[in-house]
Amino acid sequence: MHKVLALAGGVGGAKLVFGLSKILEPPKLSVVVNTADDTVFHGLYVSPDLDTVMYALSGLTNKTTGWGIEGDTFKTLSALERLGEETWFKLGDLDFATHIKRTSILNSGKSLSHATNELVKSLGILHDLIPMSDDPVRTIAITETKELEFQDYFVRQKCNPIIKKIRFDGIRKAKPTKQFIKNISESEAIIICPSNPIVSIPPILELPGIKKLISNFKGKRIAVSPIVGRQAIKGPAAKMMRELKEDASATGVAKHYKGLCDLFIIDTADSSEAEAIEKLGMEVHITSIIMNSSQEKINLAREVINLIDS
Amino acid sequence: MHKVLALAGGVGGAKLVFGLSKILEPPKLSVVVNTADDTVFHGLYVSPDLDTVMYALSGLTNKTTGWGIEGDTFKTLSALERLGEETWFKLGDLDFATHIKRTSILNSGKSLSHATNELVKSLGILHDLIPMSDDPVRTIAITETKELEFQDYFVRQKCNPIIKKIRFDGIRKAKPTKQFIKNISESEAIIICPSNPIVSIPPILELPGIKKLISNFKGKRIAVSPIVGRQAIKGPAAKMMRELKEDASATGVAKHYKGLCDLFIIDTADSSEAEAIEKLGMEVHITSIIMNSSQEKINLAREVINLIDS
Repeated sequence: MHKVLALAGGVGGAKLVFGLSKILEPPKLSVVVNTADDTVFHGLYVSPDLDTVMYALSGLTNKTTGWGIEGDTFKTLSALERLGEETWFKLGDLDFATHIKRTSILNSGKSLSHATNELVKSLGILHDLIPMSDDPVRTIAITETKELEFQDYFVRQKCNPIIKKIRFDGIRKAKPTKQFIKNISESEAIIICPSNPIVSIPPILELPGIKKLISNFKGKRIAVSPIVGRQAIKGPAAKMMRELKEDASATGVAKHYKGLCDLFIIDTADSSEAEAIEKLGMEVHITSIIMNSSQEKINLAREVINLIDS
Repeated sequence: MHKVLALAGGVGGAKLVFGLSKILEPPKLSVVVNTADDTVFHGLYVSPDLDTVMYALSGLTNKTTGWGIEGDTFKTLSALERLGEETWFKLGDLDFATHIKRTSILNSGKSLSHATNELVKSLGILHDLIPMSDDPVRTIAITETKELEFQDYFVRQKCNPIIKKIRFDGIRKAKPTKQFIKNISESEAIIICPSNPIVSIPPILELPGIKKLISNFKGKRIAVSPIVGRQAIKGPAAKMMRELKEDASATGVAKHYKGLCDLFIIDTADSSEAEAIEKLGMEVHITSIIMNSSQEKINLAREVINLIDS
């Protein structure tokens, strides 16, 4: 079985990563995660995508939301609200422990990679979970009226503002983590998970040097569409694509990965798009890509692995 | 009614402060609290005595323990334990919010006084709650075998080690807060609350210049014994006094406040000690000083106020 590197954002990416982790032994799977959504709440460093993938890998994920921890409660947040703090970002009591421990490690001068590794190890996760960068990259949503930090746009304003542009502050100066670079060179396949093609995967790809490494990558590069039937499976991807005058479809996603992907996986609902995607220089594989149950996550992961091995 | 300054440690002090706050309007009562027990857990600044008094003033106190918040749960702590952290200091979910907000304010460069004032205001407390110092003072328990940080001795080791000496690291360089000095000069009476005479009140008194200011204080100075029948009402005061070869009694406590106190209040159970205490140069007032119910706290507070006003 080949060694695989997965690139992931939050909920959608975490679903496929969960499936992959059930099939690939730890040395065979590394996951690099977007950190451009990271932010600080109440003085604590919160890394939503890293946490979503970490909770998926540890089996802690809240099955209803796809993020956060199953059975979590919100007492600390309620007390912060009583103390006059803004609490629109819903941090649970169990979840707070992650942010508290991570912040404590970061404040001791260690890197985000180090903190992530500590958290991952303490949860008994054996697969590599790697932040895309230890340097701050911050997604800014430029809306019709003003610039919003990503969580403000995404959570507080529920993606309602119309976006005109997305900017990744700090990306030119940010270095990909050593583990990221090492895993590109050591892996035999790269999977671009079904994550948002506007805000989750681009920060990973646009880190200095990464597009070139993936362009020149010798192994198979497979992407899974996060769009089915012109709608995002979850989240604002389709809405954002429309507002940015892009084609809000599997084909629109594939355009983002032109030259970076050999095989694009789309849902049976989108089979009519196969020809358009092939024109972008990718093979197309058509299957059911909706992952609601654990079994569906494992099934799709197995299909992806089979496509790598074939 | 006179303006009163209360000096307090944790649970015992908080009980009398609660009573005083029900009688004295906000401008008439200021409370200066020991911060030598402060420490950092999980990267968060925890100030046990400030919190105990703050929760008492806001009516949040856990009525069973006398510290912490009524109805608190421990999910964040359980998740920190899962992450491999030491969790012998029992921080509740509601309580965590206090430490999170305080730490965030301190990390922004503000003082402990500022952070305390922010917390107090957000809980709707109108009385002045003042840390003894914004500089770090740390109580060290020198035991027969080694030196222990105070919370390690007090909570983790449940006061079991035999102490040989207590040291307040940093006290010579620590400055009393401006609000503390201001309130000494503006108050017409000082109350030394029934707090531990080895570790809670001494750090306050031994701050540079404080003993002199209290020695020369023009108004009435009243102390309430934390010892009844040679036992501490709560906590390790009597055990510590015995181990330090002191007289573990109301008289033993009074010796600590010689020259700093005009009137010493003891329990009816200790009336036989009145003469010995008077020989230390204090008047003695005998009453019931056990404060279990809210009414008992208010009753004792009223008696103290009456002694000031008389």
